[in-house]
Amino acid sequence: MIQPPAPSLVLMRRLLALLALLFLAAAPGLGAQKRPGPNPVQREYQAAADRIIAAATADSAAWNKLAELTDTFGNRLSGSAALERAIDWIIARMKQEGLENVRGEPVMVPHWVRGEEHAELRQPRYQNLPMLGLGGSIATPPGGIEAEVIVVTSFDDLKRRGAASVKDRIVLYDVPFTNYGQTVQYRANGANEASRLGAVASLIRSVGPYGLRTPHTGAMAPYDTSVKAIPAAAITMEDAAMLHRMQDRSQRIVVRLDMSAQMLPDAPSRNVIGEIVGREKPDEVVVFGGHIDSWDVGFGAMDDAGGMMTAWEAVRLLHQLGLRPRRTIRAVGWTNEENGGRGGQGYRDAHRNELDKHIAAIESDGGTFKFQGFGFNGSDSAYAIVRQIGKLLKPLGADTIFKGGGGADIGPIMQLGVPGMSHNVDGTRYFWYHHTPADNVDKIDPRELAENVAAMAIMAYVLADLPDRLPRK
Amino acid sequence: MIQPPAPSLVLMRRLLALLALLFLAAAPGLGAQKRPGPNPVQREYQAAADRIIAAATADSAAWNKLAELTDTFGNRLSGSAALERAIDWIIARMKQEGLENVRGEPVMVPHWVRGEEHAELRQPRYQNLPMLGLGGSIATPPGGIEAEVIVVTSFDDLKRRGAASVKDRIVLYDVPFTNYGQTVQYRANGANEASRLGAVASLIRSVGPYGLRTPHTGAMAPYDTSVKAIPAAAITMEDAAMLHRMQDRSQRIVVRLDMSAQMLPDAPSRNVIGEIVGREKPDEVVVFGGHIDSWDVGFGAMDDAGGMMTAWEAVRLLHQLGLRPRRTIRAVGWTNEENGGRGGQGYRDAHRNELDKHIAAIESDGGTFKFQGFGFNGSDSAYAIVRQIGKLLKPLGADTIFKGGGGADIGPIMQLGVPGMSHNVDGTRYFWYHHTPADNVDKIDPRELAENVAAMAIMAYVLADLPDRLPRK
Repeated sequence: MIQPPAPSLVLMRRLLALLALLFLAAAPGLGAQKRPGPNPVQREYQAAADRIIAAATADSAAWNKLAELTDTFGNRLSGSAALERAIDWIIARMKQEGLENVRGEPVMVPHWVRGEEHAELRQPRYQNLPMLGLGGSIATPPGGIEAEVIVVTSFDDLKRRGAASVKDRIVLYDVPFTNYGQTVQYRANGANEASRLGAVASLIRSVGPYGLRTPHTGAMAPYDTSVKAIPAAAITMEDAAMLHRMQDRSQRIVVRLDMSAQMLPDAPSRNVIGEIVGREKPDEVVVFGGHIDSWDVGFGAMDDAGGMMTAWEAVRLLHQLGLRPRRTIRAVGWTNEENGGRGGQGYRDAHRNELDKHIAAIESDGGTFKFQGFGFNGSDSAYAIVRQIGKLLKPLGADTIFKGGGGADIGPIMQLGVPGMSHNVDGTRYFWYHHTPADNVDKIDPRELAENVAAMAIMAYVLADLPDRLPRK
Repeated sequence: MIQPPAPSLVLMRRLLALLALLFLAAAPGLGAQKRPGPNPVQREYQAAADRIIAAATADSAAWNKLAELTDTFGNRLSGSAALERAIDWIIARMKQEGLENVRGEPVMVPHWVRGEEHAELRQPRYQNLPMLGLGGSIATPPGGIEAEVIVVTSFDDLKRRGAASVKDRIVLYDVPFTNYGQTVQYRANGANEASRLGAVASLIRSVGPYGLRTPHTGAMAPYDTSVKAIPAAAITMEDAAMLHRMQDRSQRIVVRLDMSAQMLPDAPSRNVIGEIVGREKPDEVVVFGGHIDSWDVGFGAMDDAGGMMTAWEAVRLLHQLGLRPRRTIRAVGWTNEENGGRGGQGYRDAHRNELDKHIAAIESDGGTFKFQGFGFNGSDSAYAIVRQIGKLLKPLGADTIFKGGGGADIGPIMQLGVPGMSHNVDGTRYFWYHHTPADNVDKIDPRELAENVAAMAIMAYVLADLPDRLPRK
């Protein structure tokens, strides 16, 4: 928590601000002189940036490629044939496009399979309950689970009710969405906490602010080995609220749950990579991308083929424009972000000895809506430089570099000192689609995607081309 | 089409408007005098209207009752046990509430059952296609239908391609939503037109402007007996667009369709009715309501338990407030609006001899979003009076009476001369939910529903209480 400043300090600051304002009002010419001109980075790179923006937004190339990728392979869960075929396709396409050092770097990934699954309300009346098992869940015992439901609104509420109310029941967490970090706790730890009090299964209200009877999946935390593992699934917001109302009406609620999910042995996968090799310092690298795996529903277009596509299209565009920077630009489609993070860990392990020469890492994994800027996580001196680069994005209406940023795939190399950045967009509707059957390319606007590509290309290009590398301290 | 006025006329009008403005500006006192005071209806009824609004919006009674109804019975297709149980519940509840002449008026209704159904993409790759058979469709032959798909964008496009391209194929109409009346043509007539050219099944892009991989059902037109009946279903907007892109990429598309829908013999149902009997002219009637049946997916909360609820809650509220008008107010939950219209026809037949004494009929079947006013269909003299009543709704921010209005359930009695009205709301999101699994009570705002109840209660009460009945000529 950040401490608020003392009241006297606040007063002093206001007084100073007022004096400054009065001074500027009295000397308007002076105020005008203070308006900053182009910074050194702008003077050097604005022309290149404008070329990149013009080329990226000239057509719907990125959107069309994203549509082709997601139409052709559908969703791409780790361990699936679809994921590996998509990676093969990307490698072949990158080579066709003339990218350099195109390759797949091997990683072993978890292989969870959903299988058949079904939930239904049995009491007070029959109704099908659209559902998705949570990633990592075990199956129900043969014959399924049929049990009375207890609806709780928080972990505190669960504990207050205690084992006497929870034992042999299915616990339903009906927790309305506030923000992802807060609400996703119930997806992560709901089963462990319910099992601790003797529950036989755990259901959550899908993690999102809005739905059209849409279930959302996503990873659970690993089962706590000190309690019995129980199956876990998400039902829709609408049905969770209904069961809650039924409980408020003192109705007995019985649900039947059948799941056949299982965890198979780890499977081979790859981080997929394409580069533009630096003309002066090829061993210094700006790495950027998104993840190519997705949950096993919908098309994983927003999460995260679109993010991966912004980096891929960015290098393709730079190559097409003949913009070869001093250092190497490396676009990566990380594998297995969703249920293991093995892609990011594998990248760290494979490149451990080169991380000192990693200038920066940028991740796009929050959707490809209207571009709003980048987040930066590194030294203050580097932040000042990145803010200068940010000004190049003014034609996109988003030239702010926020403090803080990173991502699940670049987290492992950030922990070893690589400055990290996130690619920020207007995420208002992100959790409408995230991990649902509706995560589809038509939720992405071609123009917005093109602007995302332009922003990624400019940031990566300039970071890779600056005469001096971005300082770590 | 309306002809635009001639340019000279436009100029003349602008000149006159300008002169009028100048005159008013020069004589501001005169402008103020012209502002209309309360009309006679307002002077007589504003106090009652304000009481009604205050009572309707004091709590969430209407929303809670709607939630209980839809939670308890789910969806309510004609012929289903759920519909008849819901009607029993409404009758019992209306009696408890002290409404008068509570009854179910028997009607025989079509009994279509969906059964199991499934669609999947087989080529160029496997994918489940979320779908809903269209109401009235036949089943596929035993073993299902597996055939190549041809995507068309209109009936013209279908005809242009001709029998050579269509024969033995599944036709998919990928027609983006413009407005309901226009787009629903493909749901109504798609199968007949496709069969005419030898197609084996008909698929449509779901009729709606937005979805989260949500299929929409709804009625087909009767099968044209001059062509072979073929099964018909809706797939999601997302999947329709994807299959269209696949065709644009010259990919061969094969879909498998399994449907077991069947039409059973007509089943008994009822129009459900509750009244406040008029204190002076009990045989003169203002009838209003919505339909209690729904499609067999979701909860039919928006379409149309909410509309039915506005009339039901309106009479309950008037009864609670002791407001008994000169004439009878009759709230009706019509049965079988969705796939037959037998409720509206049955009402006409049962009351044929009393229709001269039907003062007006009001239908709410467009959702219960933010109330915007009423539409009116009747004589000009009646319209002038209804506009005066409309001014009572000013506290709800919607005191406009539009010209034109009616509804499927009151259509049969309007044809016999009864003035008809529709209850209008902001329908921006109506077709997000309409005929889908997402048509659920949590899409309805309790305050907005309460304001709808108030508007219906005021309009019905004043129409029923005016000293002179609404003129038909």
